[in-house]
Amino acid sequence: MAAPALIPRAERVAHFEQDVWSIFTPLALECQAVNLGQGFMNFPPPDFVVEAAREAVLRNDCNQYSHPKGRPRLRNALAKSYSPLFERTLDPENEIVVTAGANEGIFSIFAGYLDQGSEVILMEPFFDQYISNITMNGGVPVYCPIRPKGDISKDMSASEWKIDIKELESKITPRSKIIVLNTPHNPIGKVFSREELTEIGALAAKHNLLIISDEVYDRLYFDPKNHQRIATLDGFWERTITVGSGGKTFGTTGWRVGWLIGPKTLLEPALAAHTRVVFCVNSPLQEAIAVGFEQADERGFFGSQISAYEHKREKLLSVFRKLGLPCTVPEGSYFILVNTDKIQVPADYEFPALLHSRPKDFRTCYWLTKEIGVCAIPPTEFYSKPNQKLAENFARFAFCKTDETLDAAAERLSKLSEYIKK
Amino acid sequence: MAAPALIPRAERVAHFEQDVWSIFTPLALECQAVNLGQGFMNFPPPDFVVEAAREAVLRNDCNQYSHPKGRPRLRNALAKSYSPLFERTLDPENEIVVTAGANEGIFSIFAGYLDQGSEVILMEPFFDQYISNITMNGGVPVYCPIRPKGDISKDMSASEWKIDIKELESKITPRSKIIVLNTPHNPIGKVFSREELTEIGALAAKHNLLIISDEVYDRLYFDPKNHQRIATLDGFWERTITVGSGGKTFGTTGWRVGWLIGPKTLLEPALAAHTRVVFCVNSPLQEAIAVGFEQADERGFFGSQISAYEHKREKLLSVFRKLGLPCTVPEGSYFILVNTDKIQVPADYEFPALLHSRPKDFRTCYWLTKEIGVCAIPPTEFYSKPNQKLAENFARFAFCKTDETLDAAAERLSKLSEYIKK
Repeated sequence: MAAPALIPRAERVAHFEQDVWSIFTPLALECQAVNLGQGFMNFPPPDFVVEAAREAVLRNDCNQYSHPKGRPRLRNALAKSYSPLFERTLDPENEIVVTAGANEGIFSIFAGYLDQGSEVILMEPFFDQYISNITMNGGVPVYCPIRPKGDISKDMSASEWKIDIKELESKITPRSKIIVLNTPHNPIGKVFSREELTEIGALAAKHNLLIISDEVYDRLYFDPKNHQRIATLDGFWERTITVGSGGKTFGTTGWRVGWLIGPKTLLEPALAAHTRVVFCVNSPLQEAIAVGFEQADERGFFGSQISAYEHKREKLLSVFRKLGLPCTVPEGSYFILVNTDKIQVPADYEFPALLHSRPKDFRTCYWLTKEIGVCAIPPTEFYSKPNQKLAENFARFAFCKTDETLDAAAERLSKLSEYIKK
Repeated sequence: MAAPALIPRAERVAHFEQDVWSIFTPLALECQAVNLGQGFMNFPPPDFVVEAAREAVLRNDCNQYSHPKGRPRLRNALAKSYSPLFERTLDPENEIVVTAGANEGIFSIFAGYLDQGSEVILMEPFFDQYISNITMNGGVPVYCPIRPKGDISKDMSASEWKIDIKELESKITPRSKIIVLNTPHNPIGKVFSREELTEIGALAAKHNLLIISDEVYDRLYFDPKNHQRIATLDGFWERTITVGSGGKTFGTTGWRVGWLIGPKTLLEPALAAHTRVVFCVNSPLQEAIAVGFEQADERGFFGSQISAYEHKREKLLSVFRKLGLPCTVPEGSYFILVNTDKIQVPADYEFPALLHSRPKDFRTCYWLTKEIGVCAIPPTEFYSKPNQKLAENFARFAFCKTDETLDAAAERLSKLSEYIKK
């Protein structure tokens, strides 16, 4: 029998482009580059969490389906850990939903709320999966940039990247339904201040928008020693779903355990979608994350994790300071945006055809990976086309890596000095 | 601040009704009934698979993100195990995608192929999640019943439930895009014959439909000692995506590891959707399922699992035979459809209001759970409204349970005899 006529794909996936990961992850491997690209840890999760996973698979109830809402033990542990942070007693039965990673949680919120043509306000740069998660559910992303307001030719704090609240309001239309906030922010490392959150929340309230607060880096902040939650301010709880991540919290990005926190009525549509998309989340690793939260405080885990990351941040910052490359110093998350403007890639360097149509930072990061041996990610991937110029002189480096890896990166990056404009 | 105006949910989740699980699972718990409702194992997975999971979490690469396609080790193990069964050398790089359970795999196929108004042909009874997975992606389910052609007042083989191929073709329109096949079939236990598959496949070829062959019970068949795959017949490979399940194969329904097998061009749209919905599947349990496949043959695992299930099937069948209740004897899967027509529920029995608008089998199963102490599932949940009458005299019992549980069920079910019409 002859090959059948092509069965055409759905419009919702037809326009997907090759993403940044499928370019740079294989490239890093091929060049044996030190990979500071993708934000996964190359060190193990804490022993007590690993041990909990090993014990969970010995209990048969942990090997079978969980409730679509999540295992009671994990919802209870999350409620206990997060209630003080949310300044309210969270109800584990109704105000928490465990998802297959934060990603599927966010997908399910969009599936639960967006109709054809519904608009979602995003701040640029954004986590790249937001876009497809919105468009697959019929929504339309609308962009508002966060701009560096400091002197980008010097080190600056991530707090100097600012949203213009008037510009943000100008993006709202009668079709706007959701605004997405990400704090601590990837890739800027900005932790939004109480004042900024109050302004954003007031806009959402004025226009009756649902707020998705993507706080997957909520346990990773440096200075100020603080992480503000929009759900705790001015009655915004009533319109906010906060997104969390076991992978970011316990260094287990491959366990695919995330959660949504918010009022019952807001979570219901997301839970309805989630239950149909994945039915439930893997059981043994939910159990292990539950143990993680149960024991984290007595073990002082979150504090010592922050200290470890602060040390890594300083280690990587010092490399770029020595080279004279200005950085955005992150207040949270595990990324550093480096201003690459002074790097002079040889004018006759040959790039693969694939990169000709991409912004300058794709070529800078390609050259860094291939010739310097350190992989970074071009941040224009996290911008809409019209605003990509805002980021084409930056590269994103992840520091969620062992000290040995960061030292190896430092050594290779020292070769950069001969390419840097004085 | 006052509570905000309601943020309306999306149309795609607005019509969801309360599902059968959220009625019967809590009811079984509340009544301390023996739960033969939901199809999960209440015995542990094989030791060598559990041990593999315990080892995987000690290796950090197994705790971080996997490739969206699935871990290479699992794709290689699947290719090796399935190539002989598919009568072709499967390419682990392009012809296998690992999904967050079979459920998310099926969701992602629909997301990758359905546009607004695309029609999907389903055979009734169907796995209930198909419906929402179709409608959430803009599709329209179209139903064709599988009818009992034998004498349902006696025991009959699941093979006597038949599809009318002319009726099936009459359901196809220019908007039809996909036909879903489920073999071994839940809840009938039917294993479609080579002749039936050839007829169904020919229809799909004639009308250029994609075939989703849901074969999650493909390692659980009894007699004939056989499981035919439509992807091996008459060039249907080119239009078939076969769905598999680690949970069903190794007794780990809570691990959420499934897979899709098919030609690269057919899988691409599903992979594109899957990558955005969940990004990747949990890593350590993928690794453990890989070890499961690597070692299953030398350990004779699949054969001894079938023997164990055959024994359980006989044990449960003998209970109904003793009671004089006719059964559909399953050729595969772990469900028995029991004809409940002869059960006389007391006429004055009071049912909760919730059940007044549901078909008769909901009330029979409620009474069985509450008064006899054995939970079964009403199969009309797996039918479209116009065809529910075909199933209202049946109840579905799962036998993926320990012998002790089946014995306890037998003892309680013996109380039924006084309610059975002679």
